[in-house]
Amino acid sequence: VLADGRVLNNLNKLKKDNTGYDLKNLFIGAEGTLGIITAAVLRLVPRPRSVETAFAGVPSPEEALALLNIAIERTGGEVTSFEIMTRAGIELVLQFGASVRDPLATPHPWYVLIELSSQQRDGLREAMEQILAHGFEHELVLDAAIADSLEQGKAFWRLRELFSEVQRHAGGSIKEDISVPVAAVPAFIREANDAVAKLIPGARPLPFGHLGDGNIHYNVSQPIDADKAEFLKRWGEVNEVVFAVVKRYGGSVSAEHGVGVLKRDLLPSVKDPVALDLMRGLKRLLDPKGILNPGKVL
Amino acid sequence: VLADGRVLNNLNKLKKDNTGYDLKNLFIGAEGTLGIITAAVLRLVPRPRSVETAFAGVPSPEEALALLNIAIERTGGEVTSFEIMTRAGIELVLQFGASVRDPLATPHPWYVLIELSSQQRDGLREAMEQILAHGFEHELVLDAAIADSLEQGKAFWRLRELFSEVQRHAGGSIKEDISVPVAAVPAFIREANDAVAKLIPGARPLPFGHLGDGNIHYNVSQPIDADKAEFLKRWGEVNEVVFAVVKRYGGSVSAEHGVGVLKRDLLPSVKDPVALDLMRGLKRLLDPKGILNPGKVL
Repeated sequence: VLADGRVLNNLNKLKKDNTGYDLKNLFIGAEGTLGIITAAVLRLVPRPRSVETAFAGVPSPEEALALLNIAIERTGGEVTSFEIMTRAGIELVLQFGASVRDPLATPHPWYVLIELSSQQRDGLREAMEQILAHGFEHELVLDAAIADSLEQGKAFWRLRELFSEVQRHAGGSIKEDISVPVAAVPAFIREANDAVAKLIPGARPLPFGHLGDGNIHYNVSQPIDADKAEFLKRWGEVNEVVFAVVKRYGGSVSAEHGVGVLKRDLLPSVKDPVALDLMRGLKRLLDPKGILNPGKVL
Repeated sequence: VLADGRVLNNLNKLKKDNTGYDLKNLFIGAEGTLGIITAAVLRLVPRPRSVETAFAGVPSPEEALALLNIAIERTGGEVTSFEIMTRAGIELVLQFGASVRDPLATPHPWYVLIELSSQQRDGLREAMEQILAHGFEHELVLDAAIADSLEQGKAFWRLRELFSEVQRHAGGSIKEDISVPVAAVPAFIREANDAVAKLIPGARPLPFGHLGDGNIHYNVSQPIDADKAEFLKRWGEVNEVVFAVVKRYGGSVSAEHGVGVLKRDLLPSVKDPVALDLMRGLKRLLDPKGILNPGKVL
């Protein structure tokens, strides 16, 4: 529904349509500032026949990335998740999370959670084993467990899903949702850690997230025994040093969470000025009276 | 490059970026009427490790569709081509194409060309055999050949690739590039054939194309011994009856070839008026002087 009340009917089930401009993607991700989406066509895909989940300890993000590339090379689109987590966060999960345990016998500096999904009946377990075997052989993987049941797979996922929530037990936490090219993730984490350590000595970076998407939730917990409120006041300064690294790698300061109010005033410092101007033009065109989700995004 | 000479730098390598409106897709498919694309970032994917190609005779588009669904269910994203062709067109290919032969011993009313591609080393041949075996068992497939070599696979593709070109040997040909939801392709072909037969008795529909995309090149050759020029004069009338069927199934009158000049004046009759109005607004916003590819699309 457009700002003037007219309804743009974009409900079609076509895979190909080249009769004009791509209007659909203009509204997706615009956070309701260009129009209100009231209906959608969904495509159903067959449920995967088999899913394999592994939890592996790795030396560093570099090795995690190398392992991701092996997994993609060997199984292509069957890599449906590839998550990275730092040990310090897993320790919080193990300490404060309910019903969790470390699937591996000893601690490791970093972890990855790998999920493969396939329409095919057979061979997925073997593919996961081969990826990990290659990882062991080339010192990309230190230890690994493959889930033997759906239940165990869910237990691996719990470690990942609790990662953000348990950070409240470590005091104040400054949270970022950044993306960089997948190949730049290890360098980003290293350089952001350095920048944060220099800015706030003792602050504890707890990066985790979707390595396969180049999307890292770069969270920073306060130094032990620091004042929470004082630490959180420095959110803008942390933004500044982290976003400088993001910018160096051509990244985004909001990979999946959007702009809203929180990041609206940041846009001029991170966005191409021509892009921002074009966004303002689109907003004027589609919502001249500024009545759609006012104050958000722009 | 925008109409006012400014450069919108949209060159990034990110899989996720939610810092504002999706500007990229506004320019893709706009045929240069909103700006000029001068650079692009390409993502490379590993070359498939194995490819299997099959050529099969089927009773009708209904069975071709059922076979496509089986192939998707069994191999998911590994179905990289699923093309449909009518016998009358294959006859022209066999008669006028250079270095071609029918891979099957007897003629069949319709054909499909199936290509599976995989990153995985093994099992793809077996998957193709199982799809075809299922097809035989359920009377979806009348006869089939699986390419035993890259060479033979290319020979199968030649039959498909010559399909359009050889139609000049059948006299004048009115060509359409439509799409409908994949599930509606058989009904579309049947109803369009009926409509064309009623309009121009003896005209020969030669539909073929990308069944997996719901995109049919619905070409119609003149009746045997008809006057070519007189036949081609009726292009608009053929459009009208074929597009009525397309519209009934929520389809597009230009699946992949775009609008340009040829289909510009058709848009008001097939496009949602609000969509068309929004397209005009975007054109005014981005190219107020009308200097970008003038006269095209709008």
